Amino acid sequence: MSDLDKVLAHIDADLDHALGRLFQTIRLKSISTDPAFAAETRACAEWHAADLKTIGFDASVRDTKGHPVVLGHHRQGTGTSVLFYGHYDVQPVDPLILWSSDPFDPTIVTLADGTRELHARGSADDKGQLMTFVEACRAWKAVTGKLPVPVTILLEGEEESGGANLPGFLDEVADELRADVAMICDTNMWDATTPAITTSLRGLCAEEITIHAADRDLHSGFYGSAAANPNHVLVRILADLRDADGRITLPGFYDGVPELPEAMADSWAKLNFSEKEFLGEVGLSVPAGEKGRSVLEQTWSRPTCEVNGMTGGYTGEGFKTVIPAQASAKISFRLVFDQDPLKIRAAFRAFVQARVPKDCRVEFTEFGSGTAVAFEVGAPAFQATQAALTDEWGKQAAFIGGGGSIPVTTLIKEKLGMDVVMAGFGLSDDRIHSPNEKYSLTSFHKGIRSWARVLGAL
Amino acid sequence: MSDLDKVLAHIDADLDHALGRLFQTIRLKSISTDPAFAAETRACAEWHAADLKTIGFDASVRDTKGHPVVLGHHRQGTGTSVLFYGHYDVQPVDPLILWSSDPFDPTIVTLADGTRELHARGSADDKGQLMTFVEACRAWKAVTGKLPVPVTILLEGEEESGGANLPGFLDEVADELRADVAMICDTNMWDATTPAITTSLRGLCAEEITIHAADRDLHSGFYGSAAANPNHVLVRILADLRDADGRITLPGFYDGVPELPEAMADSWAKLNFSEKEFLGEVGLSVPAGEKGRSVLEQTWSRPTCEVNGMTGGYTGEGFKTVIPAQASAKISFRLVFDQDPLKIRAAFRAFVQARVPKDCRVEFTEFGSGTAVAFEVGAPAFQATQAALTDEWGKQAAFIGGGGSIPVTTLIKEKLGMDVVMAGFGLSDDRIHSPNEKYSLTSFHKGIRSWARVLGAL
Repeated sequence: MSDLDKVLAHIDADLDHALGRLFQTIRLKSISTDPAFAAETRACAEWHAADLKTIGFDASVRDTKGHPVVLGHHRQGTGTSVLFYGHYDVQPVDPLILWSSDPFDPTIVTLADGTRELHARGSADDKGQLMTFVEACRAWKAVTGKLPVPVTILLEGEEESGGANLPGFLDEVADELRADVAMICDTNMWDATTPAITTSLRGLCAEEITIHAADRDLHSGFYGSAAANPNHVLVRILADLRDADGRITLPGFYDGVPELPEAMADSWAKLNFSEKEFLGEVGLSVPAGEKGRSVLEQTWSRPTCEVNGMTGGYTGEGFKTVIPAQASAKISFRLVFDQDPLKIRAAFRAFVQARVPKDCRVEFTEFGSGTAVAFEVGAPAFQATQAALTDEWGKQAAFIGGGGSIPVTTLIKEKLGMDVVMAGFGLSDDRIHSPNEKYSLTSFHKGIRSWARVLGAL
Repeated sequence: MSDLDKVLAHIDADLDHALGRLFQTIRLKSISTDPAFAAETRACAEWHAADLKTIGFDASVRDTKGHPVVLGHHRQGTGTSVLFYGHYDVQPVDPLILWSSDPFDPTIVTLADGTRELHARGSADDKGQLMTFVEACRAWKAVTGKLPVPVTILLEGEEESGGANLPGFLDEVADELRADVAMICDTNMWDATTPAITTSLRGLCAEEITIHAADRDLHSGFYGSAAANPNHVLVRILADLRDADGRITLPGFYDGVPELPEAMADSWAKLNFSEKEFLGEVGLSVPAGEKGRSVLEQTWSRPTCEVNGMTGGYTGEGFKTVIPAQASAKISFRLVFDQDPLKIRAAFRAFVQARVPKDCRVEFTEFGSGTAVAFEVGAPAFQATQAALTDEWGKQAAFIGGGGSIPVTTLIKEKLGMDVVMAGFGLSDDRIHSPNEKYSLTSFHKGIRSWARVLGAL
């Protein structure tokens, strides 16, 4: 029996204890965005530091200007060194009334088909996922007395509340963090039986614009048509942003956006992705973006511009014939490849400014920005992870793109110059950030076994 | 001393008592839109019926499905018979914190220049205005024992809450109401020293549209660009509604809209209207509507389309990268001359429907409609009123247009076939519908004297 086999057997035998430990961290209400939970958030950090110490990590709770970071080193051993990132904070739970069980009292639910799920806030995002890695380390330590490779674990406490203090922290302790490769467990499988490694993420450039006109709301009977209506100015700007083919009209917007590299195209073609099912799940049927692009391209490798919110004038019950003093919209651009968020923001502001008539003025509010990231899957750590996941799940692990943004991935790549392997065991119906968040017990169990295999393979 | 001179002298001497009576009705909180004030609204109707009886009117409170109507007849006398319309209900007072005094405790404020104002909800709209007519009747009765002409007074209790029951009521009692001419005191002077008769009002066609796409809100990271975004569909529709010259693009929209008749153009030219001052008062400087049209044309004789409200997606603090399930807008058209509201609504719906992509659907909600009205100022009642107002104010009374809509005017014209003389003594800064509503005591005093002259002249 190989060491790995013994480790896997240990994981199987110890699963109930692993669940018990997960329950302990879930019960600590580490809602980072709500100051009322600051003490409990710190208690959760302390729990994780203590837990890592029991596996032999040199672990401590490190203060920041916000919630603390947990940092633990286990430097024994040789081979590919790993920096693992997870976050121990969770989203708020409102509205509480929509939960079927107490969000902080982990509950195991068995479905009609025998599937077992753990219901609780943080069960998937990210406590359940991060503990798959920690438990894999614990099993190696228990069976062999050491970890197969040097490992550093970094657990953030502000991922759900903006992560304002992480960049500074990474700068401060860069020397402690640098390793051969970074690993993050905060993403999804391709589907319930196919493991996946996310190799690209879109960047983001988010902005709010407010158009101001008259110095007060006006009655449209007295002023209608003579007075500038900021709603009219706003809809003209927003409509002008895309052409009839769904392309974004900002000058220079597609600079740095290549056609899809052949390797990616080949790999995505193998996914047998069904556009009809993907859109059908939410009641839609027609891809709405750039004409001539597949849904995977539209969501993974093409940039986009979405109006995420807009408001102006009277929006309550009934009708008021008002010409509002102002109107505003929140707009986000998802960026790919080498698009530069700063250039995009500047181009957007110039585009808007050119469409604001003399009697109006525009106010811009910046909301975050980040470049896209993509990793070459030929690197050894990606290949080793793919092989390990394939062995565990009995199905070829997929390299997939991601349409969203995970800021820490960009930070690790830019500040520490490391590749980031994003492998996670979440499912698309885990309801993260929503009531009744859940994590499949299969994800938890086979997730631990997956990481045990990855650590053994590095 | 003529009868009229005696009546005017009586009005001057009785002014404090007239104010005292106005205070009594103001103190009754007849907020028609709020069911909590239903009893007090009825009490206000009863007060007015009782008050009219003291002047010799055969007055009663008439029930409707909503708030009651006060109807009083004083059929003595010969000459041009008059139907006077006013409304005894008032707007809500929120936010109360913005009032400098109790809105239902009438307060007289003396400004630095000696101007005296009555501050209270309803002081101008419409209790102060309607009482100018009632007090004029009272003075004639007191001095001569009768009114110079037969008068019927109709006071509505639902003007501020939709007026749903007025059309049916007018049908029911049409025979009681028919007179030679109708008069309404619910409009403004041209400026603080120039009396005015409003001879035209724009019609209205109001509609809300809601664009539905996915069956739930989506994360723009996962669905961005692949999923239809109702905000995008909505801004395209709203932007398409007007061309670069500010003209409305609905097919057939300008049917029934002639160039400004010469008589109106001449009469308006004499007003010495300053576009700069009109727009400057609200912080604007450039007429925003149809190119090549004056502000008076834009607001009195040209039709328009205003987006009065719109909302879609996340509009709170911060940012959420959501693709909303729906987005909606409230749109109103102001109509002139012979535009047909039903045709406009149909054209608008067809215009919207043609721009809704396959994956979306649109829901239409109708909010009121009415045709424009205009009266020939050559009719004797208009000439008599103009002469009377000119005598009282020492300045030629202006015939002006109105940009808003007064539904009862259209109803009286259409259902009873009568001309409506709209003369009022409000000022543009009376803050009707807003905190600290006021009515100038000069408006009240000279308003009573004006109506006394009008009654004498008919």
